[in-house]
Amino acid sequence: MTRQLKMMGICGTYGLDSANGRMLEIVSELLKEQGIEWLVWDNKLNPLPFVGEDGCWDHPNVKKYKEMASSADAFVLSSPEYHGTMSGVMKNSLDWLSFDQTTGKIFGFISTLGGQANTTTLNHMRVVARWIHGVSIPEQLVIAKVKTVFDDKGNIIDEDLNIRIQKFVDSMVLHASKLRI
Amino acid sequence: MTRQLKMMGICGTYGLDSANGRMLEIVSELLKEQGIEWLVWDNKLNPLPFVGEDGCWDHPNVKKYKEMASSADAFVLSSPEYHGTMSGVMKNSLDWLSFDQTTGKIFGFISTLGGQANTTTLNHMRVVARWIHGVSIPEQLVIAKVKTVFDDKGNIIDEDLNIRIQKFVDSMVLHASKLRI
Amino acid sequence: MTRQLKMMGICGTYGLDSANGRMLEIVSELLKEQGIEWLVWDNKLNPLPFVGEDGCWDHPNVKKYKEMASSADAFVLSSPEYHGTMSGVMKNSLDWLSFDQTTGKIFGFISTLGGQANTTTLNHMRVVARWIHGVSIPEQLVIAKVKTVFDDKGNIIDEDLNIRIQKFVDSMVLHASKLRI
Amino acid sequence: MTRQLKMMGICGTYGLDSANGRMLEIVSELLKEQGIEWLVWDNKLNPLPFVGEDGCWDHPNVKKYKEMASSADAFVLSSPEYHGTMSGVMKNSLDWLSFDQTTGKIFGFISTLGGQANTTTLNHMRVVARWIHGVSIPEQLVIAKVKTVFDDKGNIIDEDLNIRIQKFVDSMVLHASKLRI
Repeated sequence: MTRQLKMMGICGTYGLDSANGRMLEIVSELLKEQGIEWLVWDNKLNPLPFVGEDGCWDHPNVKKYKEMASSADAFVLSSPEYHGTMSGVMKNSLDWLSFDQTTGKIFGFISTLGGQANTTTLNHMRVVARWIHGVSIPEQLVIAKVKTVFDDKGNIIDEDLNIRIQKFVDSMVLHASKLRI
Repeated sequence: MTRQLKMMGICGTYGLDSANGRMLEIVSELLKEQGIEWLVWDNKLNPLPFVGEDGCWDHPNVKKYKEMASSADAFVLSSPEYHGTMSGVMKNSLDWLSFDQTTGKIFGFISTLGGQANTTTLNHMRVVARWIHGVSIPEQLVIAKVKTVFDDKGNIIDEDLNIRIQKFVDSMVLHASKLRI
Repeated sequence: MTRQLKMMGICGTYGLDSANGRMLEIVSELLKEQGIEWLVWDNKLNPLPFVGEDGCWDHPNVKKYKEMASSADAFVLSSPEYHGTMSGVMKNSLDWLSFDQTTGKIFGFISTLGGQANTTTLNHMRVVARWIHGVSIPEQLVIAKVKTVFDDKGNIIDEDLNIRIQKFVDSMVLHASKLRI
Repeated sequence: MTRQLKMMGICGTYGLDSANGRMLEIVSELLKEQGIEWLVWDNKLNPLPFVGEDGCWDHPNVKKYKEMASSADAFVLSSPEYHGTMSGVMKNSLDWLSFDQTTGKIFGFISTLGGQANTTTLNHMRVVARWIHGVSIPEQLVIAKVKTVFDDKGNIIDEDLNIRIQKFVDSMVLHASKLRI
């Protein structure tokens, strides 16, 4: 019997109570429908230190974070666009990963923006994923004018966007299944 | 009489006691020779919080950092390449800047790498500088195989590299002088 | 008396009878109002060969093109986004330029897109401009959903966009004036 | 019985008698050892027109090129770095591809440079491959100081580089096998 696939969300805002965190939650619900186990790192509950900060190398949260990443078959990265690219929170979270946790694993990307659409944040996260030997799926989610996207209950209003999210999730499962290591 | 120009260094390693910090120091010495005043932010002495962390919005170091940036005419960004792009420390430092401190000001970029040369870190920092309405000089410094670059006293061994550093500094001064706001 | 400034348009569609060509025309009219002389390369009238094609090195149009570029103080590049970045026509046109024609000169960028906004084409053109030692202005124009942008007479409908175009033009003139070589 | 896999090379120099063409040849020999069928487009023999050039839309070579691409399961793109990114020849070749020929297929990338190493050409080709819904392998080949790389017979001198080429080829085969459509 095949082991259940596990996927891990990494959030580019410090807390998960953000549009980016909500996007991870929406994706996770659809993944769970397909029998995928979901993990997510929460910097508010378990702060990662800055790389290089005193005590960072033996920080218990770094160890916990790496163990969570080691156990995952795939990663969903969801970042706000800050100044044209991923947030510092996202980049610092990625800086704590390395080949040991990521080689050959699947990556998918989500970018939220206050204003117009843009793919630079996604392009730059793809560069990082490749550098740590991940395989990135072609599907990606750009959530522009993010304040207009959700209804009062946090559900996405635009049906076309819901269809694209489902395709993103299906592609994550397809690639993680075919390329599992 | 014209006001003296001020330039500010931002370091992509947490402390300044790194190759990146040393590059900022070398550049600052050459700038001072041309009468430029030098400022540098030191995260070890004055930690910036993560954007979004509890208490971050009123953090005294953020205020201090923005005041330093406001007083500068130009910025030198020196980052290690972590996983193919700028460090999280660098990006978080840039996330705390905004148009108010940077519009129309000059930016120059340095990237250090453990291995082979690459310009991706520089390309990505340029995207950020443009986003906050800065003007980036064409000269840039890529310091590859960084462990072999300095002698015991922290001086750069390769004379060609010293010439390129001087050209970088001259271009910073030229552009900051001609475009001062 | 100061010599009049000259600016040159380079178009990423093969002919100038395109949205990209029209954007260059609109920009040129505003530049002329400020006393700037305008030049534009037209691949339909004067085809540039592919770099490496038989006879390319002595092609009379290449000579003519380089002379035009040599005479310009600044360049406006207007490209469609094809497959996520600048067109092959634009890149081949840029491949024919070199330091001799471009060092220290000013570059501004326009990207048109059939669909949603994106800045990747602009980011990639900026990499090229820097490589040939140009100085790029921070202002840039993204023309999304380009089929809806012009009225029947080829004028831009959205007044906000017209304001942004004026700011782009003003920045070209400002930077070319202050940094003229 | 499984159909034999086919892979297609696209060369960023106009002719195949270049370092880039040689890299495709070396890769193809290793692919053939693993039973992969190899196709390569040669612009010298079968020139592709510029997109937008008179007669381009019905050009017989465009038809032939698209048919070749349709028949391939995977693509190897080998481009020189011209002015910091892929050549115009490469981009124009990519402009002639679309979703019909590329969705879900595998892409691998090679960049040759006269001087120091850089990955910008590779990063930018990855953006295009994603845009046309391809899946890019993490392994990539940067051939710096390309004039020193080959011996008189066109073989690669550096044994480490030969090992990396073999890994690149193995990854192409692995991903094309697992993700064949």
